[in-house]
Amino acid sequence: MEEVVRVVVDAMGGDNAPAQQVKGAVEAVQSMDGIRVIFTGQRRVIEQELAKYDYPKERIEIVNAEEIIEMGEPPVNAIRRKKDSSIVVGMNLVKHGEADAFVSSGSTGAVLVGGQLIVGRIRGVERPPLAPLIPTAKGVSLLIDCGANVDARSSHLVQFAKMGSIYMENVMGIKNPRVGLVNIGVEEEKGNALVKETYPLLKECEDINFIGSVEARDIPSGVCDVIVCEAFVGNVILKLYEGVGATMIKKIKEGLMTSLRSKIGGMLIKPALKETMKTFDATQYGGAPMLGLKGLVVKTHGSAKSGEIKNAVIQCVQFKQQHIEEIMRDLFQKN
Amino acid sequence: MEEVVRVVVDAMGGDNAPAQQVKGAVEAVQSMDGIRVIFTGQRRVIEQELAKYDYPKERIEIVNAEEIIEMGEPPVNAIRRKKDSSIVVGMNLVKHGEADAFVSSGSTGAVLVGGQLIVGRIRGVERPPLAPLIPTAKGVSLLIDCGANVDARSSHLVQFAKMGSIYMENVMGIKNPRVGLVNIGVEEEKGNALVKETYPLLKECEDINFIGSVEARDIPSGVCDVIVCEAFVGNVILKLYEGVGATMIKKIKEGLMTSLRSKIGGMLIKPALKETMKTFDATQYGGAPMLGLKGLVVKTHGSAKSGEIKNAVIQCVQFKQQHIEEIMRDLFQKN
Repeated sequence: MEEVVRVVVDAMGGDNAPAQQVKGAVEAVQSMDGIRVIFTGQRRVIEQELAKYDYPKERIEIVNAEEIIEMGEPPVNAIRRKKDSSIVVGMNLVKHGEADAFVSSGSTGAVLVGGQLIVGRIRGVERPPLAPLIPTAKGVSLLIDCGANVDARSSHLVQFAKMGSIYMENVMGIKNPRVGLVNIGVEEEKGNALVKETYPLLKECEDINFIGSVEARDIPSGVCDVIVCEAFVGNVILKLYEGVGATMIKKIKEGLMTSLRSKIGGMLIKPALKETMKTFDATQYGGAPMLGLKGLVVKTHGSAKSGEIKNAVIQCVQFKQQHIEEIMRDLFQKN
Repeated sequence: MEEVVRVVVDAMGGDNAPAQQVKGAVEAVQSMDGIRVIFTGQRRVIEQELAKYDYPKERIEIVNAEEIIEMGEPPVNAIRRKKDSSIVVGMNLVKHGEADAFVSSGSTGAVLVGGQLIVGRIRGVERPPLAPLIPTAKGVSLLIDCGANVDARSSHLVQFAKMGSIYMENVMGIKNPRVGLVNIGVEEEKGNALVKETYPLLKECEDINFIGSVEARDIPSGVCDVIVCEAFVGNVILKLYEGVGATMIKKIKEGLMTSLRSKIGGMLIKPALKETMKTFDATQYGGAPMLGLKGLVVKTHGSAKSGEIKNAVIQCVQFKQQHIEEIMRDLFQKN
């Protein structure tokens, strides 16, 4: 029998909390065995939401946390002071071995700081990256790092490449994932100081499949599986991806309203367009894992709906059952 | 009578040279008075192309240059050694006051290096940025810097903001252009070391309309007119913009082929979709100016067709007639 994976779901964080968080987590529990969900947050509010669903009572529990960390709060202060918040209480459950993973749609800053300060890094990991999956023409790629680790060093990027490879191979099932370094040209001598220093280090790594520099232009076509960059660049890529997509869809929809002909055409293509857009919808793929921690932390979009929460919870099961943390522990402690 | 603007067009650089370069430049000359074009490149080849058109002979001439700088060549070497290349010969015409501007679809690296080494910076300008116009939902924004100036300092970014404002106000006719600093959050304390250092400096500038940090997500909606960033980030933004757009269009087209219904719809929406896509087509807006030089250098896409060349040549006229170089000279020499 496979072991039960215990996932904490922050019921209070995100634009649609607690309704969508509770709904998504319940759906995850209903969809497969081997998951137990622990909600952290205000008990009475969570109970009200839970009352709407029929679910196996023994597989969902609530740990009360009265405080809520708001989106605008300075993260370090919030984590240090709000000991009774859904994030701090939830992460402490992971820290003390009472849960395996933590999923939140709340403040990215607070989740990243909490991950480092409360859950803690695996020994040997210099910086834990936040690594969202982004949709491409061929499937998904892991964009590592999009976190708070700005001004990274080359040794950090090398670790990101290794952690990303482990994740894509074991959680996403991509054999020998291709690792690319984000650069402004594909030639080895191109780049800023950080990239020039990192390139030869990645080339030397025997445990990853480094394919060299990749240009941002080629990311959407799925040129590699693990996209390595420092967090400022990663953040720009992630957000521009969403921004260009959203603006183009809006423009296309406006364009379809310009004539009767295009309106009729628009009605006919609606189902096909919707299906196409779905493949470009990041929420299909669960949240962004924060890697290199003693336990898994997953950050979903702030606007996450139940589908994303459900996928994020299921992602945690995969992560645990594939022993990702143990693989990383072995890798970084021996180095 | 307005003065004649003399524009050198590199006839040998780019994927479609010399045919599209010659065609575009001839079209520019035909479209308005006040332009004279000087082609640099292999005379016999250019003459062959020119023979296809009917144009005012006194307004187009050829200065022979036998060598061609290839795309893959190390730029500094190429500029130093190939004295008889279309780029070096063309830039020397600008340097010696025999032309006002230089347009090339050739190697970006060679154009940037040539701009600095041959045409030369305006005194007081620390680094000349390459600043393409990118399409947004509202029009276009200037993305400054996308050049070769990686690892920039905060003082460079402040100059980029000023040069970009002058360009957008005078060439593009946008009054009091909004300047945004690319960042990973809109709060003042967010960012990497460079951005944190640059933010207060931009805030202090009285001669620009600084609106604060902008996130990459908001760039496509047209949140600001001048997008300030260092070249590595700018390059990622520019190329990802093109990449996401191209991949989405491809996916949508594939989606339209999935059923008879969507195929019919696709035929009906074709004209509207084409019109919409045109607004997202960077080639509509001419090339990317390299600012802060003693003369104008414009780099078009390597894949430029005649329309982009024509627009780039006309852009040079606007630049000269609005006295952009003099405005920048006044600004940076007094500081």
